[in-house]
Amino acid sequence: VQLASASAGDHGLNAVGCSLRCRFLNLTIGVHLSVAKAWCIASRPKDCPQLADFIAIEIPRRDLREGEVRVLNHWMSVDPYMRGRMNAGDSYITPFELDKPMDGFAVGEVIESRATDFQPGDQVLHMLGWRTEAVAPANQYVKLPSSTIPIQAYLGIMGMPGATAYFGLFEVAQAKAGECIFVSAAAGGVGSTVLQLAKNKGLTVVASVGGPEKVRIVRDLGADFVIDYKSSPSIESALRDAVPSGVDIYFDNVGHSHLDAALGCAKDFARFAICGMIQSYNSTQPTILSNAIKIIEKRIAIKGFVITDFVCKLDAFRTDMAALIQQGRIRSLETIRSGFESGPSAFLELFSGGNVGKMLVRLVD
Amino acid sequence: VQLASASAGDHGLNAVGCSLRCRFLNLTIGVHLSVAKAWCIASRPKDCPQLADFIAIEIPRRDLREGEVRVLNHWMSVDPYMRGRMNAGDSYITPFELDKPMDGFAVGEVIESRATDFQPGDQVLHMLGWRTEAVAPANQYVKLPSSTIPIQAYLGIMGMPGATAYFGLFEVAQAKAGECIFVSAAAGGVGSTVLQLAKNKGLTVVASVGGPEKVRIVRDLGADFVIDYKSSPSIESALRDAVPSGVDIYFDNVGHSHLDAALGCAKDFARFAICGMIQSYNSTQPTILSNAIKIIEKRIAIKGFVITDFVCKLDAFRTDMAALIQQGRIRSLETIRSGFESGPSAFLELFSGGNVGKMLVRLVD
Repeated sequence: VQLASASAGDHGLNAVGCSLRCRFLNLTIGVHLSVAKAWCIASRPKDCPQLADFIAIEIPRRDLREGEVRVLNHWMSVDPYMRGRMNAGDSYITPFELDKPMDGFAVGEVIESRATDFQPGDQVLHMLGWRTEAVAPANQYVKLPSSTIPIQAYLGIMGMPGATAYFGLFEVAQAKAGECIFVSAAAGGVGSTVLQLAKNKGLTVVASVGGPEKVRIVRDLGADFVIDYKSSPSIESALRDAVPSGVDIYFDNVGHSHLDAALGCAKDFARFAICGMIQSYNSTQPTILSNAIKIIEKRIAIKGFVITDFVCKLDAFRTDMAALIQQGRIRSLETIRSGFESGPSAFLELFSGGNVGKMLVRLVD
Repeated sequence: VQLASASAGDHGLNAVGCSLRCRFLNLTIGVHLSVAKAWCIASRPKDCPQLADFIAIEIPRRDLREGEVRVLNHWMSVDPYMRGRMNAGDSYITPFELDKPMDGFAVGEVIESRATDFQPGDQVLHMLGWRTEAVAPANQYVKLPSSTIPIQAYLGIMGMPGATAYFGLFEVAQAKAGECIFVSAAAGGVGSTVLQLAKNKGLTVVASVGGPEKVRIVRDLGADFVIDYKSSPSIESALRDAVPSGVDIYFDNVGHSHLDAALGCAKDFARFAICGMIQSYNSTQPTILSNAIKIIEKRIAIKGFVITDFVCKLDAFRTDMAALIQQGRIRSLETIRSGFESGPSAFLELFSGGNVGKMLVRLVD
């Protein structure tokens, strides 16, 4: 293993290094190497997915082809948007195929490479999640920088959810210091990042969460006002009580009555960044808005967005966010479930509020 | 009378001219001069207004003060937005006060002036509608240019509804040639102008209207596809059948199921200009959206707007629209009701689809 580390620049020795390293890994996490495993969806749920909608399969190991890289996944991501991928039909992202390994973000370590740009030991981000091991051409991996930031952060605050918060807040909603923002699901992966970014920028934040533990957590993160929607008879009344002069921005992760409350309490020319509607994902119940007319009266601009539309700007996000983390001005909240087997249950917890911050599945101890 | 016309530039003779003119007018439309009349609201309706919610009052005539102008209103405007003004409470425009003369756009002729800028015979636009005669300081009147455009057009296609169509289409929705637009209430004052402006610009237009007469009218105006929502079991299905590839723009005058249909058939990055929700004005029924999630999936931008936010740009609108009218490229559709007494009933017809194009009340034959 030391040989592999020392000879990172030498292709001739790399094969040996890799081989040594693989054998070493084999001892500690042998199951991952003897056979790779992946989660598939077995059926498309109509409403709330069940564990029975998922099935684990074994993927036979095969030799790498020229240009391919094998990665041992250390962490995989489960995210609310994946619920939409369980449905058939067109959307902004392709549906999961039945009985084929699901994909999604994951981070891991290169354990074998037939591509010149990757060496065993490299830490990478990629989209071949929901499996223990990824085998793909080198262009499907992004090498992670060496830093004090732990690699799982690239699935959360430094990754897709962090970028979603960042671009939703600053590009879509055009947040400015001194404004007032209402954010729903404020203890979630995206919401907790929106909250902190907004406080760093100098906004007043009204955070909606479910339950007393999350109330405490978002207060700790700096929320100026907190609404526990589970114990509030009316989100709209609670929001109006918190900020009688209204909100400049609504960052929507929930939809439905949260969206309606925000419409009812919007200031003139308020901007709504519509990021998620988790209350819709498992339900065919329509969205009922008593305050739709406020869109006109208050000249509200409502914009849906998807993070993939901002990929060309990711460098700016990564630089800014890394600086905030390293300066201690923003914290990564994580809920961790352990083991490949816990993938589907961790995913299902997203819809019952089981996570605080980013939900992660740790695949390698 | 000829003396008055001939002496328009002579202040000394103007008083005589005015006096002669007044006496002449007095013979033909004596009721307006012996006593002015105005409509007030007598009660604030909960849902659909009734005739009994309006009351006509007499306004005692008084002498003009220095700087004031007296205008005999020839046409007054009734508009859907006025329904909102019948409610108490804050909005983008102040509510009508109970038992005080209602205001609104009107055009008429100066019959007496103690302001140097206005002469009897001048044709003016102003906000003191819902009455036979206006008495106000000169700065509340806008002199209309002499042109072939009839003055009542300044209540319609050359006025607030025309400007609403123009800025909604080009500023809010950023309409471009080659795009596809869906417009609801397309036979209305705003909708029929949106339709024609869009066709002039080179867009494909899907028009929704109620009933076979309006279907015929919007086809004549150039609509590429027409949906009769009254005979369509599903507006969304009808829209999808008309333009399977979806719409780039939705111009909303109706809200509710029209808005939901547009969400369901929006292309990626569609823009919705939310101008009116006439289906909401007389109802406390909430807006029910089955397609709210499309806001995210399709990255739809929904923007409410109010024409008063565009006053600084009205000159550009007037120049462009006058040219289109004079080139015969756009037509003003009008529904005319005659006599001061018909004001409230003309207004109520707006909510039952009684108008084609701009609803106008002619006060002087």
